[in-house]
Amino acid sequence: MEPYVPGEQPRLGPGQRLIKLNTNENPYPPSPGTLRAIAEAAQADLRKYPDPASEELRQALARQYGCTKAEVFVGNGSDEVLALAFGAFFATNEVGACNEVGACNEVGATNFVGAKALLFPDITYSFYPVYANFWQIPYQKIPLDTKLAIVPTDYLRPCGGIIFPNPNAPTSLALDREEIIKILRYQQAQGNVVVVDEAYIDFGGQSLVRDIHDFDNLLVVHTFSKSRSLAGLRVGYALGNRELIDGLTRVKDSFNSYPLDRLAQTGALAALEDQAYYDRVNAQVIASRKRLAKNLADLGFSLPPPSGNFIFARHKDIEAEELFVALRQENILVRHFKAERIANYLRISIGLEQEMDELVACLRRIIQEKIDETARGS
Amino acid sequence: MEPYVPGEQPRLGPGQRLIKLNTNENPYPPSPGTLRAIAEAAQADLRKYPDPASEELRQALARQYGCTKAEVFVGNGSDEVLALAFGAFFATNEVGACNEVGACNEVGATNFVGAKALLFPDITYSFYPVYANFWQIPYQKIPLDTKLAIVPTDYLRPCGGIIFPNPNAPTSLALDREEIIKILRYQQAQGNVVVVDEAYIDFGGQSLVRDIHDFDNLLVVHTFSKSRSLAGLRVGYALGNRELIDGLTRVKDSFNSYPLDRLAQTGALAALEDQAYYDRVNAQVIASRKRLAKNLADLGFSLPPPSGNFIFARHKDIEAEELFVALRQENILVRHFKAERIANYLRISIGLEQEMDELVACLRRIIQEKIDETARGS
Repeated sequence: MEPYVPGEQPRLGPGQRLIKLNTNENPYPPSPGTLRAIAEAAQADLRKYPDPASEELRQALARQYGCTKAEVFVGNGSDEVLALAFGAFFATNEVGACNEVGACNEVGATNFVGAKALLFPDITYSFYPVYANFWQIPYQKIPLDTKLAIVPTDYLRPCGGIIFPNPNAPTSLALDREEIIKILRYQQAQGNVVVVDEAYIDFGGQSLVRDIHDFDNLLVVHTFSKSRSLAGLRVGYALGNRELIDGLTRVKDSFNSYPLDRLAQTGALAALEDQAYYDRVNAQVIASRKRLAKNLADLGFSLPPPSGNFIFARHKDIEAEELFVALRQENILVRHFKAERIANYLRISIGLEQEMDELVACLRRIIQEKIDETARGS
Repeated sequence: MEPYVPGEQPRLGPGQRLIKLNTNENPYPPSPGTLRAIAEAAQADLRKYPDPASEELRQALARQYGCTKAEVFVGNGSDEVLALAFGAFFATNEVGACNEVGACNEVGATNFVGAKALLFPDITYSFYPVYANFWQIPYQKIPLDTKLAIVPTDYLRPCGGIIFPNPNAPTSLALDREEIIKILRYQQAQGNVVVVDEAYIDFGGQSLVRDIHDFDNLLVVHTFSKSRSLAGLRVGYALGNRELIDGLTRVKDSFNSYPLDRLAQTGALAALEDQAYYDRVNAQVIASRKRLAKNLADLGFSLPPPSGNFIFARHKDIEAEELFVALRQENILVRHFKAERIANYLRISIGLEQEMDELVACLRRIIQEKIDETARGS
């Protein structure tokens, strides 16, 4: 198994300061009501197990999204929800299915091309291939186009299922709902599940949540880690047809009955009640993103139009790794993936206004130094 | 998959009262210091991801148990730790290993008897067969003796690994450390991992923690849910040779990077600092257990000598199911397993002193009514 490597969570010494723009956290804290509810729950009944089925939280999510509790699944962050979804919908346990195409040894290999391969973009959330290997699911990576966009027609083909984020990460690019509907319709006829990972949907793009009643093969996955400022609490959820939710629940109850502790259930519930606060905060993130995109363009960066709480940008002259190192020296942490096709991009989370100003000022200085250096002929 | 069914976590209406003795929770709350630490953590940085490696908590556990951080693994309750341990140490992925004994279709069946079968007691924590099925691990259940005790010599045989709780659940019976050492020695020579699930060890029995340095095939699993009163927070851990811990970590990081939220990490850390409080609380639980055992014996119950925070008792005249229903009507919830050999036992968690008094009074009443009924010849 090749484990997933999450973005660095540095531990700061006393007096040390870091502008942390590397793991797409929300720069604003959870709402006061959320924090109050957690503090109260901490005083009550922690000695007792939590509700293993998270009934209250699922009921509240159902109300918020106009569906029933039976159409809602919750887990320990959307990472756990995704891990369970891979097991419930993409793991066939049919060794014969591999043998057919003579590629059994290559299960999990990127070059597996069979009728039963799971499809996802070549540039996307890097946990997907890890999950696939965990469950021994054959998969095929479908290349983004030259503008780093998902090509929807590439997903109209026989396969073992489909997963992609919308907006995609790390590109921050969103796909139109209508294009996804076409994929859903084609794959519904094939009997294949399509998981749309909407971790960043509250910052842009069109949600598919309202389509779960039309497509029994659609699972939409959300998280409290981004638009609800609760990455530290580990709560994610999925919305879909009740048979899909039943499938997820069976896998979950074969692995860990109580993945959501009492404080996580209470905190998430309270966050749903403070929707207005989070809407305000997220509008601010979107405004900051717009300003940052313009400032970066002025500095010579190009970037796909961003829809997440982050941008994905490359500079016309300076390599991403060089910028990454220079920023790190100035105590600004962004994310750089040493992967094919995107090695020259930086993924930068949207921070506070002041943090964005410092970032831009710092980049301006680094770029100017580089220009001066080049002018001196060094 | 046949999921695990945890003990009922009933939701009480206003004014409703229930003496809850069905899921072996600690009747005493977490220490004030634990609660204070959680409340403080709730005000700080919940917007940020937790430390995926739980470094501070693992360091504190290492200090407490006299080992290194590299010998400590933490997870979302000991249930998740166990689930990952099954995958790391018992799942072979060698389909050939099944074919050898001609029992491939029976992988996970209780009657699988092969050199590679995982061994555990026939009466034990009912999540074990669920995990085995989840990972498609062949297993063999080894019968307890007529006194419901594990027979250590039964585990001196070629196998695919061993797991049992000590003290065992639901029997509450402990096995001597020396007997377990013999199993460890035999299986070390065979290259097999032995997982000793010490969820209840702080209430009785001899821990194997000090033996992890002598036995590289020993994994000891603990939880904060029982002796540290934090079932609602979901924290468990494992101690063992660093190669075993590395194996667990690789599986965990292929499934979910951040299973412990910030509040769980902080709360568990604070609980370790309040060891004196928990020692006091657990001594009280042990004293209550002693008193309850005597009172039940006086009422005509027999029970194996208990070492956990629960007792496992049968009445000489009245069937367990009848007692279970009668207690439920009096708002006392205990656990009854409708399983072979133990269908006539009740598992009763140790509660507050007053709860134990009410339980005994209630049982006395039920038994007297039964005697009166019989005397009337009905």
